[in-house]
Amino acid sequence: MTITITAFETSPDRGRGLARDMRIRWALEEVGQPYEVRLVSFKAMKEPAHLALNPFGQIPTYEEADLALFESGGIVLHIAENHPGLLPADANARARAITWMFAALSTVEPPIVDRSTVQLLERGETWYDERLAMVDSRIRTRLGELSRHLGDAEWLDGAFSAGDLMMVHALLRLKSSGILEEYPNLSAYTARAEARPAYQRAFAAQLAVFAAASSG
Amino acid sequence: MTITITAFETSPDRGRGLARDMRIRWALEEVGQPYEVRLVSFKAMKEPAHLALNPFGQIPTYEEADLALFESGGIVLHIAENHPGLLPADANARARAITWMFAALSTVEPPIVDRSTVQLLERGETWYDERLAMVDSRIRTRLGELSRHLGDAEWLDGAFSAGDLMMVHALLRLKSSGILEEYPNLSAYTARAEARPAYQRAFAAQLAVFAAASSG
Repeated sequence: MTITITAFETSPDRGRGLARDMRIRWALEEVGQPYEVRLVSFKAMKEPAHLALNPFGQIPTYEEADLALFESGGIVLHIAENHPGLLPADANARARAITWMFAALSTVEPPIVDRSTVQLLERGETWYDERLAMVDSRIRTRLGELSRHLGDAEWLDGAFSAGDLMMVHALLRLKSSGILEEYPNLSAYTARAEARPAYQRAFAAQLAVFAAASSG
Repeated sequence: MTITITAFETSPDRGRGLARDMRIRWALEEVGQPYEVRLVSFKAMKEPAHLALNPFGQIPTYEEADLALFESGGIVLHIAENHPGLLPADANARARAITWMFAALSTVEPPIVDRSTVQLLERGETWYDERLAMVDSRIRTRLGELSRHLGDAEWLDGAFSAGDLMMVHALLRLKSSGILEEYPNLSAYTARAEARPAYQRAFAAQLAVFAAASSG
C-alpha cells in the first residue's frame, strides 16, 4: 500500500528541514515505512485538486489507499497508531505521549511560528523591534517551562515518542535565533533527536529536493 | 473511577465558556461521564503542585486513577478514544476526525488566539489598529477556507465528532468580534453545536463557577 505525501516544490527555507513535511518524513523513517513524495507549487496548493486534500491549501498531505489526511499532527499520530516505534505500549504512557504532541503544537509552537510571521511580514514596520521582543519573551517563557520539565532527562516522558518528534521539530525553527542556546538542556535535546538515523534520512531526503530544484 | 479536571477559580471571560476547561466539560458531557472540578487560582497554577500536572502552568488538567494529562487536545482525544460518542467507528473516518482536531488547534485557532493577545497586550501601542487589521485578515483567510469546506454540511466530516467540538470551541472565541457573522454557514455551524444538550450542560456548569465566585 503506497504512502504518498506532499511537500513544497520550492523549499522556502532552502532545505533546512523546517517545513512540516519533515515531520512526516521523520515519522515514516522512524517506523520504517517507505513513501513517495509529490511536490506542489505555491500556486497548485491553492487549486481545487490540492484543496480537496487540504481545505487550507497547505502541505503536507498524506494519501494511503482510500484515506487522505492533512495536518502534520494528524498524520504523525495516524502513522504512530498504525506502526510500532512512536508510541509506548502502556495505555497511560501512550496518552501522555499524545498530550506532548498537542503541547508541542498548541503551547510551544505558536509563539515560535509568530516569530517567523513577525520577521516575514512586519520587518518594515515601525513596531518591528518591539514586537519581536514581545514574541521572544513569550517564547522564553515556554522554553523555560519546557526546560524545567525536561531537566536532565533524555526525552519528555520516558522513551522517544511522537511527542518528542513534534516538540523537537517545533524547537528547530529557533535554530537561527540563538534563543534555543540559552537553554542548554533543550539544545542537547534537539541535538539528540537530530542525531537519530531516522531524522538524518528524512533530512537528507528533503535536502535532496532543494538541491535538485537549485541545480535544475 | 473518578475523573477530576481543573478550571480557573476566577473566570477571565466572566463565564462566557471560552476557557479551555469548557472543551473537557463538553466532551465528558457528550460521552456521559461524570467529573469533578478542582478550581485553581492564577497563583496556584504556577506552583509546584499544579506544575507537576502541567509543566506550562495552565488549565485544564485531567486526572483519572494514576493517569494525569494536560492540553485540551490531548484530554479530549483521550476521552474520545475511551468512550463512544466522539469518534466514528470506521478507521478512516476516525483518522479524519482526529485530523480536524489538529486543524482546529494548529491552523484555525492560532490567529484567533493572537487576536486576543493583541487586544490584551497591545491595546495601548501605537501599532494597535494596524496589527489588529493584520490578524483579522489572517483569521478571515482561515474562516473563508473553512467555510468553503463546510458548505451546507452539518458537520466537518459526516457525524459530529471531537474534530467539530475543538473547531467550534476555537471559533466561539470570535463571538464578540463580529467576524464569524461574515460567514453565515460557520455561524450556523457554531449555533448548531451550542444547541447540543451536552454543550448546554457544560456551559451551565462553567457559568455556575463564575456565578458562585461573583456572589461569594
